Amino acid sequence: MQHTTRQQDDDNRQLISTLSGKVYPFGRTEEFADNGESLEVVGPNDQQPVIRQGRHIWERFAGFLPFRQPDLSVSPGEGNTPLVGSGAFLSEFSGSKDLWLKNETMNPTWSFKDRGTLTTTWMAREMGEKVTATISTGNMGHSVAAYAARAGLQALVFVPDFTPREKIMPMALHGARIIRVESPDYAAMKKKILEMAGHLGLRIVSGNGPLRVEGYKLTAFEMYEQMEGEGPDYIVVPVSACGHIRGLFKGYRELYQAGYISALPRMVVVQAANNAPVATAIREGRKQVVPFTDVNTIAEAITTGNPMGGEEIIDKAYRHDWPAMSVTENEILQAQVGLARSGFFVEPASATPLAALQKLTGQGIVKSSDKVVLMLTGSGLKDFDVFRHHQVGVYDCNLHNLEETIEQAMQ
Amino acid sequence: MQHTTRQQDDDNRQLISTLSGKVYPFGRTEEFADNGESLEVVGPNDQQPVIRQGRHIWERFAGFLPFRQPDLSVSPGEGNTPLVGSGAFLSEFSGSKDLWLKNETMNPTWSFKDRGTLTTTWMAREMGEKVTATISTGNMGHSVAAYAARAGLQALVFVPDFTPREKIMPMALHGARIIRVESPDYAAMKKKILEMAGHLGLRIVSGNGPLRVEGYKLTAFEMYEQMEGEGPDYIVVPVSACGHIRGLFKGYRELYQAGYISALPRMVVVQAANNAPVATAIREGRKQVVPFTDVNTIAEAITTGNPMGGEEIIDKAYRHDWPAMSVTENEILQAQVGLARSGFFVEPASATPLAALQKLTGQGIVKSSDKVVLMLTGSGLKDFDVFRHHQVGVYDCNLHNLEETIEQAMQ
Repeated sequence: MQHTTRQQDDDNRQLISTLSGKVYPFGRTEEFADNGESLEVVGPNDQQPVIRQGRHIWERFAGFLPFRQPDLSVSPGEGNTPLVGSGAFLSEFSGSKDLWLKNETMNPTWSFKDRGTLTTTWMAREMGEKVTATISTGNMGHSVAAYAARAGLQALVFVPDFTPREKIMPMALHGARIIRVESPDYAAMKKKILEMAGHLGLRIVSGNGPLRVEGYKLTAFEMYEQMEGEGPDYIVVPVSACGHIRGLFKGYRELYQAGYISALPRMVVVQAANNAPVATAIREGRKQVVPFTDVNTIAEAITTGNPMGGEEIIDKAYRHDWPAMSVTENEILQAQVGLARSGFFVEPASATPLAALQKLTGQGIVKSSDKVVLMLTGSGLKDFDVFRHHQVGVYDCNLHNLEETIEQAMQ
Repeated sequence: MQHTTRQQDDDNRQLISTLSGKVYPFGRTEEFADNGESLEVVGPNDQQPVIRQGRHIWERFAGFLPFRQPDLSVSPGEGNTPLVGSGAFLSEFSGSKDLWLKNETMNPTWSFKDRGTLTTTWMAREMGEKVTATISTGNMGHSVAAYAARAGLQALVFVPDFTPREKIMPMALHGARIIRVESPDYAAMKKKILEMAGHLGLRIVSGNGPLRVEGYKLTAFEMYEQMEGEGPDYIVVPVSACGHIRGLFKGYRELYQAGYISALPRMVVVQAANNAPVATAIREGRKQVVPFTDVNTIAEAITTGNPMGGEEIIDKAYRHDWPAMSVTENEILQAQVGLARSGFFVEPASATPLAALQKLTGQGIVKSSDKVVLMLTGSGLKDFDVFRHHQVGVYDCNLHNLEETIEQAMQ
């Protein structure tokens, strides 16, 4: 309540629509502009932000963020994830000699979503909201449920009625209330929920909300520190709702504007060929998202068929010369195995960057000497269904033929 | 090969059996003494180790470790996990006002095992071994498989023939060779494998090996840094093979011996009541492990019924006044929900410390003002079977009664 008063007095924070530049109040409940464009926060804490001293990254980069008094006690400890060299096998696999993996599976709910959920949680607290809601069967729903539990908010998670119980249970254990909606299609359900939310003054957090993007900026700041100032040439990102790639780029853009880096890294927009509304648009030179319906891909974490605000990313791809690439189901499976053979077990969506990179180096679009970061967005434990598509050989034996089996397996 | 030569020349490293003090060579392949006692590494890099400057914890604590030239390139980035305050709900739940959670689920394969797997991997490399093997259906097998992949070793994982495919698949994707053994009982299978391994010169890494313990020491060092020198009064640890609790204590003991802390934290030995071979011994004042057979508990990650070398922990419990506690299936389930309601989704084994703490404060053994750390050892994503035991309420609706359902759920 104090915050509300303060905001009215001296608040320079606003939301601005990313293509037409229309301005909205910072406290707006809807996460998109009236015309559907994505919104971006302007008005960070410092007009000319500098990196400060501090133990926690939120302290060091506080000047870049729009949160006046972030409460770290609501954080279960997201971020601070390793950036590690790929090793020889993946260099060979991908054709990239300077390859790095940013392992976002090592977050509190084992996906990159947690970074953005911290910032949406701060927003809910600042606005005095008691409820935080999202529409998700996956990483987003789990993350929002966990953070709400820690922050003492009530989470609502909307799921379609075909959602399996094992997806609902973790959210429910966290204390989220699950609203299971019977609906002929997912898009209609989403539209109806957003309408109702408008009536009820309920904030529905999505993968591409402006506050969530502020959380993903921190991944860029963290990589900047881990690389000791040197930026990568390319950051390869699975794209679905578009929030993650946007946050990563915004972070680097702000470092560039503040004079900390002399060149912007290029993002690589990666989608599954079976659901490539943004990558297809970029590759075909269109300005609008190319909607996909009845999406069917093993990359279940990136199935937004018609991402709201996706035009921003298409626009940025042209302005900044970002490659886009879509990858087949088979390429995703092979990349998932490739990452596992190097020690990283990721969900299928998180294997798409490796598959894309392999094609981009093959086509000469990314050079083998370019410094490349692959974003590993979610844990392999998130999706056991994909095992249906993998073959596995097992050495079967009993206590009598054990020794010869061991000898055979050791060869 | 170079290393081997160097060892023969100037190596002060040895393995010493923890109760009788018998000395074995550092390179010994068997992880236990001839009489079954657990082994401990003596001869760290520095005779009087001090904490050094360095970016990575392995650099800062190198003097405490027995690895001459640890190769960080084989690490996928384990450790550096958050130590976070419990929040009000868990304080209330547990009766502890100064409660902290060490979240080891945020490791590369989402359990504490990774820290010990790094050190066993270093050992394999130093010894010039090409194969690393373990007997496991769970966290250990996954961790060993992942690290072997990154280090270019061949992993062998022995599993009993009833192991479900979803447990085998992650290990297999990492490239481990899976040996599935038909056997009337697990103990007989284990015994036979260890015999065969002896013949074949194969090192079978277990949960209580001396090199693994060196990895777990780092968790203690990390907590020492996170608490800025102040030690907790109690560290509550799920106990199965006994390696984790041993490593945590060894780390603090070495800090104490080096003069960095003035008192040792007490460990709390926690087991499931359905499988409490160590906790029962301690509570009944026995010196020997009390073997459990036909173990059946939802805490699947802590089902060692007769842990080799467990007598060491029993002995230490008497010497250092460590409480022991066993917890029922129902208490485990309630604690799992309690942790989830605070934002932490853990596997059932990792909920046992909270359940134990609740009983220990209730009995006045741990005071509400004591500083307590609960070890969260493995991710909730490791075990979906437990969902059978949890109830979940869902708000079902369709597009027509959506608004009233939302209003109802928001109350």
